[in-house]
Amino acid sequence: MDREEFRAAAHSAIDDILAYFDSVPDRRVLPAVDPGYLRPLIPENPPVESESWDQIQQDVDTKIKPGLTHWQSPNFMAYYPASVTYPSILGEMYSAAFTAPAFNWLCSPACTELETIVMDWVAKSLGLPACFLSTSENLGGGVIQNSASDAIATIMVAARERRVCELVLAEGLKEGTVEFDERKMDLQPRLVALASDQTHSSAAKGALIAGTRFRSVPTRLEDDMAMTASRLREVLEKCEEDRLTPYHLTLTFGTTNTCSVDHFAEIKAVLQERPEWQRIWVHVDAAYAGASLVADEWQYIAKDFAEGVDSFNTNMHKWLLVNFDASVLFVRNRFDLTNALDITPTYLRNPYSDMGTVIDYRNWSISLGRRFRALKIWFVIRSYGLNGMKAHIRKTISLGNTFADLVRGRSDLFEIVTKPAFCLTVFRIKNPEIPNDTSGAVCNKDEVADGITKKVYELINTRGEIFITSTVIDGIYVIRVVSANPMAEEKYVRNAFDIIVRTTEEVLKKKP
Amino acid sequence: MDREEFRAAAHSAIDDILAYFDSVPDRRVLPAVDPGYLRPLIPENPPVESESWDQIQQDVDTKIKPGLTHWQSPNFMAYYPASVTYPSILGEMYSAAFTAPAFNWLCSPACTELETIVMDWVAKSLGLPACFLSTSENLGGGVIQNSASDAIATIMVAARERRVCELVLAEGLKEGTVEFDERKMDLQPRLVALASDQTHSSAAKGALIAGTRFRSVPTRLEDDMAMTASRLREVLEKCEEDRLTPYHLTLTFGTTNTCSVDHFAEIKAVLQERPEWQRIWVHVDAAYAGASLVADEWQYIAKDFAEGVDSFNTNMHKWLLVNFDASVLFVRNRFDLTNALDITPTYLRNPYSDMGTVIDYRNWSISLGRRFRALKIWFVIRSYGLNGMKAHIRKTISLGNTFADLVRGRSDLFEIVTKPAFCLTVFRIKNPEIPNDTSGAVCNKDEVADGITKKVYELINTRGEIFITSTVIDGIYVIRVVSANPMAEEKYVRNAFDIIVRTTEEVLKKKP
Repeated sequence: MDREEFRAAAHSAIDDILAYFDSVPDRRVLPAVDPGYLRPLIPENPPVESESWDQIQQDVDTKIKPGLTHWQSPNFMAYYPASVTYPSILGEMYSAAFTAPAFNWLCSPACTELETIVMDWVAKSLGLPACFLSTSENLGGGVIQNSASDAIATIMVAARERRVCELVLAEGLKEGTVEFDERKMDLQPRLVALASDQTHSSAAKGALIAGTRFRSVPTRLEDDMAMTASRLREVLEKCEEDRLTPYHLTLTFGTTNTCSVDHFAEIKAVLQERPEWQRIWVHVDAAYAGASLVADEWQYIAKDFAEGVDSFNTNMHKWLLVNFDASVLFVRNRFDLTNALDITPTYLRNPYSDMGTVIDYRNWSISLGRRFRALKIWFVIRSYGLNGMKAHIRKTISLGNTFADLVRGRSDLFEIVTKPAFCLTVFRIKNPEIPNDTSGAVCNKDEVADGITKKVYELINTRGEIFITSTVIDGIYVIRVVSANPMAEEKYVRNAFDIIVRTTEEVLKKKP
Repeated sequence: MDREEFRAAAHSAIDDILAYFDSVPDRRVLPAVDPGYLRPLIPENPPVESESWDQIQQDVDTKIKPGLTHWQSPNFMAYYPASVTYPSILGEMYSAAFTAPAFNWLCSPACTELETIVMDWVAKSLGLPACFLSTSENLGGGVIQNSASDAIATIMVAARERRVCELVLAEGLKEGTVEFDERKMDLQPRLVALASDQTHSSAAKGALIAGTRFRSVPTRLEDDMAMTASRLREVLEKCEEDRLTPYHLTLTFGTTNTCSVDHFAEIKAVLQERPEWQRIWVHVDAAYAGASLVADEWQYIAKDFAEGVDSFNTNMHKWLLVNFDASVLFVRNRFDLTNALDITPTYLRNPYSDMGTVIDYRNWSISLGRRFRALKIWFVIRSYGLNGMKAHIRKTISLGNTFADLVRGRSDLFEIVTKPAFCLTVFRIKNPEIPNDTSGAVCNKDEVADGITKKVYELINTRGEIFITSTVIDGIYVIRVVSANPMAEEKYVRNAFDIIVRTTEEVLKKKP
């Protein structure tokens, strides 16, 4: 492919991408394919000779597009969104063109420096406390990670190293000695990472990757599935009884199941109760809901992170208009990361890094090389402006409220299970044989309701007009509906609700 | 940015990218900027209102491009290359448009299925043994990772889990019991990962991430810096003496410093000597040189991986025409990965995954979500065809040979230190006071030669006409020159050599 062929191909691809976005609302959100659909459509062996772009683009159209789940569809109301926007695509184009595995400053100064500057922009956009800025006295800063899973695995390792080194130093051993390293190995098996049972599975996976134990703090429907101080204290005390050393705690701002928010202030107070609890690395996982912080009315939440929080993460690729991958991780102390992860051989040394005048992001993550992802974040923030980003958050939250109101309006059929929050409504179909409970008490376990809810959920997804997800919380089977992607509109929310009502009535009618 | 604004912006970006590539050979390969150059050029705060694409694109031109290290420049001869090609950029464009954090099959069937198919294509293109195909009886398969660092951290965790579970099972404990988990924690601190002292630092970092020990096997210039069987046996025996359990061994096909190749066959034979050594996870890190396997004349090397190798990794984003990130990891047994990494909560379950009929790549990596990277690999293989890829490898190897011959032709000035291999020449400037040694013996340590070589190296990079790297091997300071990117041509190789000769003569003249 020569330059003119590329120009033609790229222009054609852009037109095709636009046509794809135009077609998205009318496409079946879940593809009508069975596992293994693609294998028979693709030659068994790679081609020996070059193929033309026309052939390739045609295959994208006829073989790939029919197998996509359309996350940009306004009828996609499952999980949490994964958005893409025009300026973000432009960022990916330039990022590819400027390919450089920017593992140190010299490898591409613009790549490193723009990341530092843009992460400060993001911190300011979210109203994060100043301690997370790269310019802070405490030497905090942000780094772009692939995903929240990578972010949490990275800080789990950093937290493990910080805690175990502290313990060994406290015993009077000297860093760099054989005794020090041996003692670290002795102590490591006693470390345990904590999180609530509603925390995203990446916390348990991060603890596993770091080779440490994991324990979860139970939550209850009465607490809207949030982690509370008293439940955490019970687990901390149990750890002590079992001679385990908690070293990491994941708090969640917007859990995966129900978008609940852990009780930050009271939890931080519990951690002050004992000196050893004060040494626990506190991470706030705001993978989805963190995006709301761009809107001023939510920024009060971030005030809780000014003290007693070591790291904060949100995925701009969920709700904040940047395409995957753009998981932004902020730490209060960059040396917590670099002390754990810096293994610098000769071939990666350069005078600027050695002087500490520049950031080498390879020591802020598991990956050595990295893409130039700051470009797409920069493009999105500039193209939308803060006001455009706020408008997106406010509009989608308002659509979520509309949906929740519709559900409330049919209390004959539906029951809201947890407090609707940040575009998410969690509800179930009522057991028609149980009279309406207007006491405001939490939902009771009910196998009949579970069964009907499951049936409605499965029928809707099988038909594929809209795509929603289900989950089980505190033993109750529920449906989750989220409407937070850039194409979301009221008419789609209303249509989704109509489908749910129709399907519910159909299922209830069929019941013997 | 609406659809028509995007169309215009994208067309303009494509033209700008083409103009950038055209300009690359004439640009100073290393940017003339000092650390911190960018901060004063970018507003301190994110914009409140939307900015136009013209403003953004102009800033890319005036603020970003001057701060790039031009990895695509034919004068870039440092590290190993990081290539980008036209079809690969097209892949990134579609990948962004089709954004879906494809953490399971249902999240975007095309994304998962194309990855499986294209990884089989890659395995076949590289002539890998059939055990690494997704269709193999042993249930092997390939997965796209972000970087070799991620790949090695992932398999280090998988290897740790496999080994420690085996040990605990051998003691008669039952999986899923408290005793089993406790015993795992007891044994883990005795595990040690091994690699040669020439192995990429990601192996040591991977062991650290996994919370295990790391020991390196020394190499010598007499062995061309390769790991040998006898040196490995010594380390294995020492581990036994220290009551440590080796669980992972990284072998390298093309080390970072000198592109040397570990002695696969004899090392595999050593590992057969004891039952416990047979249980070590053997990984072949072919991050750079693995690309050579597309050319038939090198495929004999891959025959050694048919038995006794658990995993193989190469970075297509180095020498194989796909832009970063495209690190392809192949495993012999997919359950080694999924047994270690699968933590599946309710909200990630779907019937297809539960039946095992589809692959959920989230359990093959640290990241949960993933980009649709199979597209760019598919586009590149189809656009080049196998013959185009072979031609690229052969042409660049031939350029490397040309450079090595030029160096040999000036044996009055230069001394080749390790065997030139795969486009890389490693040499030093001779100490002019020592008579020519034509015995063919390996280089001796020589502080004068070290000093001159370092001075020449630094002067060349400061002037920035070409970009090369230096390193220290077996105590000797050397210069590395690689010419393997898609724009490489003989005239640039000859020009680089002329610069090195001129600079050497200049330095030697100045010496008192």
